[in-house]
Amino acid sequence: MPETVEIGLGREARRGYHLDEVALVPTRRTRGSSVVSTAWQIDAHTFNLPLVAAPSDAVVSPETAVAIEALGGLAVLNGEGLWARYEDPSEAFAQISADGGCSTAKLQRIYARPVSDELLARRVTELRAAGVRVALRLSPQHTVGLSPAVLKAGADILVIQGTVISAEHVASEHAADEALNLKTFIAELDIPVIVGGCTNYQTALHLMRTGAAGVIVGYGAHSGSTTHAALGIEVPMATAIADAAAARRAYLDETGGRYVHLIAYGDMSTGGDIAKALVCGADAVMLGEPLAFASEAPGGGRYWDATASHPRLPRSALVDLEVEPEDRPSLEELLVGPTADPTGERNLFGSVARVMAKCGYSSVKEFQKAELIVSSLR
Amino acid sequence: MPETVEIGLGREARRGYHLDEVALVPTRRTRGSSVVSTAWQIDAHTFNLPLVAAPSDAVVSPETAVAIEALGGLAVLNGEGLWARYEDPSEAFAQISADGGCSTAKLQRIYARPVSDELLARRVTELRAAGVRVALRLSPQHTVGLSPAVLKAGADILVIQGTVISAEHVASEHAADEALNLKTFIAELDIPVIVGGCTNYQTALHLMRTGAAGVIVGYGAHSGSTTHAALGIEVPMATAIADAAAARRAYLDETGGRYVHLIAYGDMSTGGDIAKALVCGADAVMLGEPLAFASEAPGGGRYWDATASHPRLPRSALVDLEVEPEDRPSLEELLVGPTADPTGERNLFGSVARVMAKCGYSSVKEFQKAELIVSSLR
Amino acid sequence: MPETVEIGLGREARRGYHLDEVALVPTRRTRGSSVVSTAWQIDAHTFNLPLVAAPSDAVVSPETAVAIEALGGLAVLNGEGLWARYEDPSEAFAQISADGGCSTAKLQRIYARPVSDELLARRVTELRAAGVRVALRLSPQHTVGLSPAVLKAGADILVIQGTVISAEHVASEHAADEALNLKTFIAELDIPVIVGGCTNYQTALHLMRTGAAGVIVGYGAHSGSTTHAALGIEVPMATAIADAAAARRAYLDETGGRYVHLIAYGDMSTGGDIAKALVCGADAVMLGEPLAFASEAPGGGRYWDATASHPRLPRSALVDLEVEPEDRPSLEELLVGPTADPTGERNLFGSVARVMAKCGYSSVKEFQKAELIVSSLR
Amino acid sequence: MPETVEIGLGREARRGYHLDEVALVPTRRTRGSSVVSTAWQIDAHTFNLPLVAAPSDAVVSPETAVAIEALGGLAVLNGEGLWARYEDPSEAFAQISADGGCSTAKLQRIYARPVSDELLARRVTELRAAGVRVALRLSPQHTVGLSPAVLKAGADILVIQGTVISAEHVASEHAADEALNLKTFIAELDIPVIVGGCTNYQTALHLMRTGAAGVIVGYGAHSGSTTHAALGIEVPMATAIADAAAARRAYLDETGGRYVHLIAYGDMSTGGDIAKALVCGADAVMLGEPLAFASEAPGGGRYWDATASHPRLPRSALVDLEVEPEDRPSLEELLVGPTADPTGERNLFGSVARVMAKCGYSSVKEFQKAELIVSSLR
Repeated sequence: MPETVEIGLGREARRGYHLDEVALVPTRRTRGSSVVSTAWQIDAHTFNLPLVAAPSDAVVSPETAVAIEALGGLAVLNGEGLWARYEDPSEAFAQISADGGCSTAKLQRIYARPVSDELLARRVTELRAAGVRVALRLSPQHTVGLSPAVLKAGADILVIQGTVISAEHVASEHAADEALNLKTFIAELDIPVIVGGCTNYQTALHLMRTGAAGVIVGYGAHSGSTTHAALGIEVPMATAIADAAAARRAYLDETGGRYVHLIAYGDMSTGGDIAKALVCGADAVMLGEPLAFASEAPGGGRYWDATASHPRLPRSALVDLEVEPEDRPSLEELLVGPTADPTGERNLFGSVARVMAKCGYSSVKEFQKAELIVSSLR
Repeated sequence: MPETVEIGLGREARRGYHLDEVALVPTRRTRGSSVVSTAWQIDAHTFNLPLVAAPSDAVVSPETAVAIEALGGLAVLNGEGLWARYEDPSEAFAQISADGGCSTAKLQRIYARPVSDELLARRVTELRAAGVRVALRLSPQHTVGLSPAVLKAGADILVIQGTVISAEHVASEHAADEALNLKTFIAELDIPVIVGGCTNYQTALHLMRTGAAGVIVGYGAHSGSTTHAALGIEVPMATAIADAAAARRAYLDETGGRYVHLIAYGDMSTGGDIAKALVCGADAVMLGEPLAFASEAPGGGRYWDATASHPRLPRSALVDLEVEPEDRPSLEELLVGPTADPTGERNLFGSVARVMAKCGYSSVKEFQKAELIVSSLR
Repeated sequence: MPETVEIGLGREARRGYHLDEVALVPTRRTRGSSVVSTAWQIDAHTFNLPLVAAPSDAVVSPETAVAIEALGGLAVLNGEGLWARYEDPSEAFAQISADGGCSTAKLQRIYARPVSDELLARRVTELRAAGVRVALRLSPQHTVGLSPAVLKAGADILVIQGTVISAEHVASEHAADEALNLKTFIAELDIPVIVGGCTNYQTALHLMRTGAAGVIVGYGAHSGSTTHAALGIEVPMATAIADAAAARRAYLDETGGRYVHLIAYGDMSTGGDIAKALVCGADAVMLGEPLAFASEAPGGGRYWDATASHPRLPRSALVDLEVEPEDRPSLEELLVGPTADPTGERNLFGSVARVMAKCGYSSVKEFQKAELIVSSLR
Repeated sequence: MPETVEIGLGREARRGYHLDEVALVPTRRTRGSSVVSTAWQIDAHTFNLPLVAAPSDAVVSPETAVAIEALGGLAVLNGEGLWARYEDPSEAFAQISADGGCSTAKLQRIYARPVSDELLARRVTELRAAGVRVALRLSPQHTVGLSPAVLKAGADILVIQGTVISAEHVASEHAADEALNLKTFIAELDIPVIVGGCTNYQTALHLMRTGAAGVIVGYGAHSGSTTHAALGIEVPMATAIADAAAARRAYLDETGGRYVHLIAYGDMSTGGDIAKALVCGADAVMLGEPLAFASEAPGGGRYWDATASHPRLPRSALVDLEVEPEDRPSLEELLVGPTADPTGERNLFGSVARVMAKCGYSSVKEFQKAELIVSSLR
């Protein structure tokens, strides 16, 4: 039974835990790092790192997608971002990264340019030509309209992602837009689909039943997120991941063996955070802001995601990462090291391999059994 | 059973939760924002927004009362504020908003001028002439003395409000002032009465039994409040609202169907806070400080309420909102957007509609069933 | 049963609550402030305020003792402080209050001058001449040596106080100093004795059995205290007071009606803190640092107590209160108001009377029944 | 049963407590400080203080090892530190302490010089010549290679210590390095071995079964530690020590009386912290950073341990203690006083003796029975 408290007479609420409220406890034998594998496989695709780079224009460009794949991860290009709105987005990037900052109002204007499905198809073609697996993110609202072009151009993985999505969306009765039926939609596709974010057991289970290959847990909370303030929605990630893992077990049972991958997204900035997300039950992590520090990152020292440019109610700030250009690490140092930085924010997956070794596990799947302690470091 | 802890041998205390300790959990289908209604109805009065503007001179003037009603809310003029003490309060406002600040001692002197019931009646008449529904706030101590003028002038709604009020006030044996018997008083009125603030189940139920149409939960804690320091009284709003909602259910049952509206007041500064108050059980929210940021607000960039000018024991500070005049939003941007501000402090009710949609509810009453999680974001 | 947690296998610990973790809940009728009495009586002595001024040289001098009694409180002069070490302590006070500060090392040197029982007796005589009730504090170590002079000179109340004291002290086998047997000692006296501080049920009960008229709960934690860091001892006051109140009930029962007064000492700086201490079960409060802000306070804008000058292990810092001389309130404003300060730190007992009224109680003893809520204001 | 919470459906986690979440409660008679002994004995070695100085180059040099033994403690020289890498490490120390700081990258380069077992043996010989008991620390990875030289030169105590170690290490199948079998290794030695750090009951028990004379609990968390961020591992010390004490009881029982000493390491900076670690069940404490403040400390106002110079993933920062040279206390003031510093960071073991007296205990072993309270001082 989940832990519940009565916040008022007749009103119960579950207690949720954030990743920074839990920690790993090494309890068994230790192991040499060299015998540890962090590899991850979704559908037919194998990756050396359990990493999905978030569909943020500040992180994934056609160029960095290639670099991230080379280092072992999967990069998701935002199908409704600047590369789908501008033939050449370099001027838009320059405005966002300009000295003196970029206001949210300006960001709204930059993203007001419509998405072109012709441009979108061209990005897919270019990425295929570069020899990488092509993953694109579309929002639930625009999947029906934009997916045909993407699929025709040959995307390998489709990511359907909003802050919070559900398997069953009730549209307006008089709505012009066609509502997306995820189950029907996914059934007709030949490529794996990743959907999310979800925040609890019930939604995770429903999303698994749509036939998705992967489910994203969380909405990508980062240092500039204001979703909690604007919407009152907060996702205690340790609880949300563990709940989704329970849904994965239930779904495995009801399908007699279909395994849906969980991708944790949000509230992770260090190797330790990633390790804790995996131990809570994630198969891989989606990272945005932590990768924006890389010297190759297109954000130029800033980070933002799709919620920052919402035309009526932006739900995150454009974050200035406050790092001097010469102090930005390479993607390689950031992901696999070595590093001389002691903050835990670099050599992220070297950290993961090391703690797996210290806890005595040799694969991510085994590592999900590690012991956790609830503890509030102050 | 409520959650209690034993703080010492034989001494139990209930555990109370603040709004910022809880968060919403989307658990079902999502819904388009366009099919969501935030409308609220009390007695014969309908409002598009579940908003009551607090009787603070910094927020509600005869002029802003008209503007707030036009945007869909109800504004309450303080019947013991500057408009009832000064023929022309503009000089008083100028002193309070003066560059260099205004001391509490000066505020005490400004509010030392006596209330005139003739002036008070004139304000009601002026507001009626402007075509809005007229709501006035009186303190329990002065309701007997001041209400006749107010009622005669034609107020639509009476708000009887102190920091903490009770249905049964025990006056001094030798008291010159006549004690207010709420039950008798309300029974004789033709217009709906809203009373409060209350902080728990028992008081809420007693206030409902006075015949009030609405009950205020909380005392309007804001960033300058020192009620906790001065009196040791604190209202964990999530708990207080949920308890009052339990009282509403009990009262519905004992009366065979009389529904008393709950108006949450305090500790809310964002759209998310408002959403959480509604989910805890409120039918509407009373907002003071959040509205004082508006360019139309009479406070001129400052906020204060009636407790700030108490002659012997002020229980809140005059708050300097620290916003440049040119950065103050319009009331419209503040209440219904659109906005380019990502803090959650603007487009407050656009936020509420959006989160109702994300949680799959189409009315405020339904939204009270949404799921909550206890979680401490750090 | 008290609330316990298992901090490690086989190791239990009680959960303790600080005053700032609890708050008052008005649950009943309200009452007019004018019908409320805050009076307190210990033995034959009655005081209008439930206030004992702490035996700190920064607060109680022969002069302020008279002023505090005039306002309704009881002041305790430190029998081992500057007035017992120096014929004329004005030079010592000047050094402690000097611009540029006073180091702990200097404080140690100033307090290294031996206590003179002849001087001590003279202070008692002077205070008697001023017409006030004379209360003196001695440490348990020096009570045997210094009390004869004090008693002979005619003290009215004796306070035997150390950071932590016990009814049974085990001295060194080879100790030169005579160990104090509290029970025998008190039995032989004609005047009431107050002893403390204690921190839990067991010690409180043992101290009551010594025949003391009052027991102090807590060691006077203030903003400069480092007892927690130096000794690992911490007193969660809400729990400690409630436990001592349980001991008072047990002792009432075993003696068939002897009522021992509880005096809470520490972690109080506002009227709300005092109110909460009373509700937890205290009959009166001992205040040090909050009174040092008074313009009449001998500390001259600084606060220190006996632990600050310990020759080998000082356990508190000399606190600079950081208030300009012209901003220091009078003792009268501090204790009974009126005030224009909204912080809750002035008009301390006006606050107490007001919150008693809002909770519907008319005496301190009744007020101990008020309802508490556990809540962490952030 | 330990206290567990369900962080997600089907996912339990233990609740762990840090030392700063607990406090001591004096509950019995008090006692004079002069009858208290803090002495500690491990194997044939007796020490007046329950102190092990940590194997950090910033704290223990051949010179300070002598000074620490003279004051009553045991100092452990890092067998893989600068003294084993450099014939004359003075230039290396100068670089680390240089004005303007020393980067982690530079620290990595300084520690890249290989360890020489010839130099290591010479340090042992020099220390023996100085007449102190010689304790050396080796990492588990290099114990097999380096211990012969150390043992031959005549070390008195061997400390085998890594961040987290286990009794059973699984090396790579193709590993060139020989895996250490602790049980076999210790059985063949004539001198006592101390091993660690461990973080929980199971590992503590396994380490005890290797035949170690002492087990270290914790990894030495200090103000610059980032192990939590880099690895997600955190050790709530109150819980970890109490668990290890439970393992000590179980091992006592299964061996019919073999007592293994627990040495707590990490999260202690004051006398109060040390006292709490002892009460949780430690027999002695290992201190690093707190001793680096001493004027004699080789770190020259900086502190670092072995994790700071890791070549691929440093897990702590080089800490600048920010104390002026003239303000650094002597080792004597730091350990046994007297002091004029009120922070609890000096006269560390005078503090311990004093609180033992206030709680009524006369030996460290008895003191482990003292009462604890869980309390969050804010």
